[in-house]
Amino acid sequence: MLESGTRGASTTIGREEKMTTEQRNISVNRGVLPLIQTLKDNAAELRVKVTTGAAGETIIDAGSATPGSFEAGRLLTEVCLGGLGQVRLDVGSYLGRWPFTLTVSTSQPVIACLGSQYAGWQLTHGEGDSAYFSMGSGPGRAMAGKEHVFEDIAYSDSADEAVFVLETDTAPPEELVRQIAKDCGVAPDKLTFAITPTTSLAGAIQIVGRVVEVAIHKAHELKFDLTRIVEGIGTAPLAPPHPDFITAMGRTNDAVIYGGRILLYVTGPASEAKDLAEKLPSSTAADYGKPFAEIFKEYEGDFYKIDPMLFSPAEVQVVALESGETFRGGAIDPKLVDASFD
Amino acid sequence: MLESGTRGASTTIGREEKMTTEQRNISVNRGVLPLIQTLKDNAAELRVKVTTGAAGETIIDAGSATPGSFEAGRLLTEVCLGGLGQVRLDVGSYLGRWPFTLTVSTSQPVIACLGSQYAGWQLTHGEGDSAYFSMGSGPGRAMAGKEHVFEDIAYSDSADEAVFVLETDTAPPEELVRQIAKDCGVAPDKLTFAITPTTSLAGAIQIVGRVVEVAIHKAHELKFDLTRIVEGIGTAPLAPPHPDFITAMGRTNDAVIYGGRILLYVTGPASEAKDLAEKLPSSTAADYGKPFAEIFKEYEGDFYKIDPMLFSPAEVQVVALESGETFRGGAIDPKLVDASFD
Amino acid sequence: MLESGTRGASTTIGREEKMTTEQRNISVNRGVLPLIQTLKDNAAELRVKVTTGAAGETIIDAGSATPGSFEAGRLLTEVCLGGLGQVRLDVGSYLGRWPFTLTVSTSQPVIACLGSQYAGWQLTHGEGDSAYFSMGSGPGRAMAGKEHVFEDIAYSDSADEAVFVLETDTAPPEELVRQIAKDCGVAPDKLTFAITPTTSLAGAIQIVGRVVEVAIHKAHELKFDLTRIVEGIGTAPLAPPHPDFITAMGRTNDAVIYGGRILLYVTGPASEAKDLAEKLPSSTAADYGKPFAEIFKEYEGDFYKIDPMLFSPAEVQVVALESGETFRGGAIDPKLVDASFD
Repeated sequence: MLESGTRGASTTIGREEKMTTEQRNISVNRGVLPLIQTLKDNAAELRVKVTTGAAGETIIDAGSATPGSFEAGRLLTEVCLGGLGQVRLDVGSYLGRWPFTLTVSTSQPVIACLGSQYAGWQLTHGEGDSAYFSMGSGPGRAMAGKEHVFEDIAYSDSADEAVFVLETDTAPPEELVRQIAKDCGVAPDKLTFAITPTTSLAGAIQIVGRVVEVAIHKAHELKFDLTRIVEGIGTAPLAPPHPDFITAMGRTNDAVIYGGRILLYVTGPASEAKDLAEKLPSSTAADYGKPFAEIFKEYEGDFYKIDPMLFSPAEVQVVALESGETFRGGAIDPKLVDASFD
Repeated sequence: MLESGTRGASTTIGREEKMTTEQRNISVNRGVLPLIQTLKDNAAELRVKVTTGAAGETIIDAGSATPGSFEAGRLLTEVCLGGLGQVRLDVGSYLGRWPFTLTVSTSQPVIACLGSQYAGWQLTHGEGDSAYFSMGSGPGRAMAGKEHVFEDIAYSDSADEAVFVLETDTAPPEELVRQIAKDCGVAPDKLTFAITPTTSLAGAIQIVGRVVEVAIHKAHELKFDLTRIVEGIGTAPLAPPHPDFITAMGRTNDAVIYGGRILLYVTGPASEAKDLAEKLPSSTAADYGKPFAEIFKEYEGDFYKIDPMLFSPAEVQVVALESGETFRGGAIDPKLVDASFD
Repeated sequence: MLESGTRGASTTIGREEKMTTEQRNISVNRGVLPLIQTLKDNAAELRVKVTTGAAGETIIDAGSATPGSFEAGRLLTEVCLGGLGQVRLDVGSYLGRWPFTLTVSTSQPVIACLGSQYAGWQLTHGEGDSAYFSMGSGPGRAMAGKEHVFEDIAYSDSADEAVFVLETDTAPPEELVRQIAKDCGVAPDKLTFAITPTTSLAGAIQIVGRVVEVAIHKAHELKFDLTRIVEGIGTAPLAPPHPDFITAMGRTNDAVIYGGRILLYVTGPASEAKDLAEKLPSSTAADYGKPFAEIFKEYEGDFYKIDPMLFSPAEVQVVALESGETFRGGAIDPKLVDASFD
């Protein structure tokens, strides 16, 4: 699913998937500091709460003890992208009943999406009833470098501060914060955690804002050489938030799976671009065809049973820069968007 | 109408309609100063004229003795919203013949729209032929606090400067400026007045930019608890300006009444959200169904005879955050948009 | 074509086409410096390479020895417009198969488009096989003032630095750089050249971004009084880049010629606005009806044989501010967009 700790661990491909020296100089954590400052300076306007945690870490609550906002969600989606993408509200009338859409574009899709936005770091602490669990998303992951995906994309970040976005309603406990700080190589007071529950407005926005990320992630699963993806643009309808976690999660996933459109520009053989366009859409998955929450319930909440190929946009265009051809796959499915959102 | 001094005086509801402490710290006048600076720094580029009035006040002419511009109108719409909203040009193909649309979003819809944008303060001076009259809009209203609506929304502002947007072609006379300064508790040279005649390009933009505001205002008239409206997004087609005041006013109103779409996120009982979605669209008004200028002429220019329920977007979606349901009301009316704009 | 050195030399109209004093104070070169700084500060993120040339000039390679990016193309389109326009990605569903579109708006269409964006200065050096040729676009042209069009629009710029955008894959040779510096009245190290090959991603963006410019240029050819055009808004689909120069050039032209929409606001007699709307669309040209690359090949690559009236958007709306009427001409041609892009 889009909050995606449960998606299969990335396979280490290595090979040609090396970043250039220039790309290694890109710091996703430094890149988001102006966005974090905007969130702090406009906390009241954005209905977020900024506090300091027990270990000195900054906590930006964007939807747990405070309602948060669309604009906070938009800014946090840009934080998720490591400052390497633009996120904006659009009027996208291709889904008549859901006229407003979130559009994401990034000229560094691999670093932005896999190096930062992908919710790939399992943050866990304690056991039993008092256990804490959250999937870590955002640029801080590239400071810790705990996931295989960082070897695959050959990217790591080194900065003075580390920033995380958590799809949860609870800030991490002090001991976990201290461990994360150690993993990132900074003092705890150099950490920032933004809290965006999936049921909140900002949470809904930042998950729909993964419309490009899921495509890049699936391309990686399909063993497409990521260094060939040079540009990613995507759009998906605003999913109405829902107070029930599973329904909320279902809608944000469905916004992408049944209502998302993506455009990728890739280098390398046109035949591989064609193949990618055919395999990338969500419709290639065995589980395609029902609202996500239904699928989730049928598998009794066991993500590992869901076909990971489902986590992708509905409609895909891949431009092969080598040949200038545009390859297409999948299609928007307005009825399933209605079934999910209504 | 959207320039709305003539809409019925707001009823004092009080009750739960209290702002939080955080919201009270929001200053709509401080928030717009960067926008005002942009207008001053780019006066030539934006075709506005910045002068100093007799009492020392700053006058930004955006369409009277200078043509003004789309971009000046866009910036002034953000000024109207007290710096609490985003206003942008979009390609909204839902009205095929009028492809360009103005989109407004605000995560503080009540303060932005009623506390600042609403043209609710009657600025009058003198009598007879030399009388001056203009409806005052913009953040300065929250410094003066002369309208009942400020009690209703429990908001007031205190800042070093006060900024107004006037739908008129004439700057206010010196004595009136001095009185306004007194009402706002600042010296006259701390006042800024932006002049946007309804017949001007910037004027047309800033009135169409009221697509969310009229909905919030009507919700207030319907006695919906405003503290429950947490997010407002709206879009309406660019109304072509017209040199005749009544036609110009008619078109900008029709852009919203027949071509406007809005999405509100509300807390509280879903049944009340449903009720709001049904009652909010312009089509609930007795006078719905003719271009606004025609209606206005039929009532011989007497606004008080027009059904105030007309002043609202054509198409409404209200998301009840409590239940996750989306309630709908009204519909875009392309034929009436054509009848008005052509 | 949109890269337009080959369009007929502008006729000197003079007459009323004088800029106001305010407009003469607008500096397109000063206006773009923040954009240039953004490109330099984010070179790695934008995949551009910034180097210093032999004469001390700054070279921003946005697609020759480096892939460049969509965002670099967007920023360079704003540079082309002299900082006087906004360029953004939109979801414009009017062309179902090509959902993403580039939208351009400017409140100074004449200075932005003809005074800066128009690729009107032939930069040539040497002879034979080693000859260098590129059409110069961007604000630097207004420093040199070598083209008739600057008399026509009565605009020139004087600034400390001069900035050019070149539709080529090669930076200009040292002697040419020194000559350009002399023509602009600055030292060579005050020159910046951005390199955007037509086959590159940024190149494709910046040519599609001429959707307003070609309309203004054609209006000038039609001898419409340019001082009457006060506002320009346009949109055109993202043309997929192609490695072959002629195909790439064809697609970017077709994006505008068959997929471009424009809205102009003009002063003066409504009858002339009506006339402009009728004559402005690309469909008035004899050569209309085939993908541009085909037309180009039929004329054996001789631009001067192509009907210059072809270089214009497909669909035109002209609002006559005098009468408030909207005049229309032309129509989007989705089949020809498909024929070109597929």
